[in-house]
Amino acid sequence: MTHLHRRQLFALLASAALPFGSAAQATKTQGRLVIIGGAEDRKQDRIILRKFLELSGGPNAKIRVINAASGVPDVVWASYQAVFQDLGALNCEVVPMLTRDDASEPNVVSQLAEADGIFITGGDQNRLMQCLWESPAAQAMHRAFHLNNTCIAGTSAGAAVMSRHMLAQGTPTPTPEKDGVSMDIGLSFMPNAIVDQHFSQRHRLSRLLSALAQRPDLLGVGIDEDTALVIEPNQSVEIVGRGAVTLVDPRRMRSNFDNADGGDKLEMLGLQLHVLPAGNRYVLPSNPKNRKQPVLLWDALSMLAKTGPMRG
Amino acid sequence: MTHLHRRQLFALLASAALPFGSAAQATKTQGRLVIIGGAEDRKQDRIILRKFLELSGGPNAKIRVINAASGVPDVVWASYQAVFQDLGALNCEVVPMLTRDDASEPNVVSQLAEADGIFITGGDQNRLMQCLWESPAAQAMHRAFHLNNTCIAGTSAGAAVMSRHMLAQGTPTPTPEKDGVSMDIGLSFMPNAIVDQHFSQRHRLSRLLSALAQRPDLLGVGIDEDTALVIEPNQSVEIVGRGAVTLVDPRRMRSNFDNADGGDKLEMLGLQLHVLPAGNRYVLPSNPKNRKQPVLLWDALSMLAKTGPMRG
Repeated sequence: MTHLHRRQLFALLASAALPFGSAAQATKTQGRLVIIGGAEDRKQDRIILRKFLELSGGPNAKIRVINAASGVPDVVWASYQAVFQDLGALNCEVVPMLTRDDASEPNVVSQLAEADGIFITGGDQNRLMQCLWESPAAQAMHRAFHLNNTCIAGTSAGAAVMSRHMLAQGTPTPTPEKDGVSMDIGLSFMPNAIVDQHFSQRHRLSRLLSALAQRPDLLGVGIDEDTALVIEPNQSVEIVGRGAVTLVDPRRMRSNFDNADGGDKLEMLGLQLHVLPAGNRYVLPSNPKNRKQPVLLWDALSMLAKTGPMRG
Repeated sequence: MTHLHRRQLFALLASAALPFGSAAQATKTQGRLVIIGGAEDRKQDRIILRKFLELSGGPNAKIRVINAASGVPDVVWASYQAVFQDLGALNCEVVPMLTRDDASEPNVVSQLAEADGIFITGGDQNRLMQCLWESPAAQAMHRAFHLNNTCIAGTSAGAAVMSRHMLAQGTPTPTPEKDGVSMDIGLSFMPNAIVDQHFSQRHRLSRLLSALAQRPDLLGVGIDEDTALVIEPNQSVEIVGRGAVTLVDPRRMRSNFDNADGGDKLEMLGLQLHVLPAGNRYVLPSNPKNRKQPVLLWDALSMLAKTGPMRG
């Protein structure tokens, strides 16, 4: 692992002191996922939103905002419009998509297909997937990400939809319970993970464990508020912001899930837990023999950084 | 592992329906530790307190209550006096020990030495250890447990003092931090563990992880409210009550603790996590080849069930 904490913080503070336009030399990089645990800073140094703009290509990047998860989409768009403008984005628009019909509109599809960066706001992940599920808009997002290196960011509900197996609902319980959560299908940029957001702040470990008991083949990814998991497909995993990302790997777990009744407390033995604080970047070596991470972490990070296949 | 959930629940409900005295045939068993995560039920079926009385030898057992952790010791004693009386205990008294001087009084020492069951109430573990630290009373408790098979129970602060390495203070933080907790020395019945109580209810995983970063050779034991970890030395580990016990095993962990500054967020890679819900009992086989648990769980449980050496 590489410890970039102080160095990275310095670079971020330095760039924060300059107008965003002075980073005009920034060029668009490979498409990334920026998966934000909600409540990202929009008033102070805005490290995460700044990172998203940088990865989208800088001030001239076409930024498109999806606010369909929100129950107050106009309010949410106004907030992000102001903050992205303040950060120097010259071409930032909202995608006019609030219904499932909208998600087939040619104008919507072309806006998403041509975006350099797509930002999905918070709200309700079920409302968002109702709109996007298997839609031309979702297919356009996949093509943009996989073929056009578009950066896809999502916060809160926008983070939950990043995975294929999406936490749809789940009342927090003190300990993991069978059927404590219900799962649905998300946008599927991350085929191997279940994402939960507001993780430490809303005490969601048990909820994530309840989900993993159902799907012990997947990785649990708990993202704190004002914290982002930045995935460079098959290359690196970086944590940006102020909290941590908690990885729970159940692949060697033994549980009583199959023999338990609904509502029963779950016994879960042999989970692997990794706490990855912001400021760290984990580069996956091309030759596994060169890996610096413990073998099980390396294995989990590789799984997390797999973003295929393209859908649509 | 053995799944006793339904069977055990049935047995407990059956015994709850009978007056306690009808279990008069119960004989005192080997000394156990009953480590309670706080807020144990004292009004309904009182599974945990009933278990403590049973393990102490039944209605005629000499039950002695230590209330020195509490800031309102009279109130606390009155509460437990009533509940133990209600459960059929015929010989239950408070130990007159509220100060460090009291802990050298021959009367106190003999009461503890001759007890069949010692119950340590909640309050402040630092206040309790101020009183008991390296005292004749603490030595008497050790001799009673190790030589006389006395059952030792503690709830909340009374649970925290069970281990040698005691969580003394620690403000909860969302993620583990260097120096986020301060440690002190407890009664040392459990030499290999750090106990945290009210675990799920007060969201103390990060606090426990902060402690384990300091002591990666120990097991982290998080006990939920109204839940008890019952240890039969070198024989078995049982979970009684309504919640779960969370075991965190950091012995294969890699962390940045040594290179971090005070207050820095901690990176902790490769922790083992086991969630053991109430209703389960894990019997350690005398021949390791006969073990039914996954090897790392077996190893952690064996470590947890080691209760020596006797002190004093």
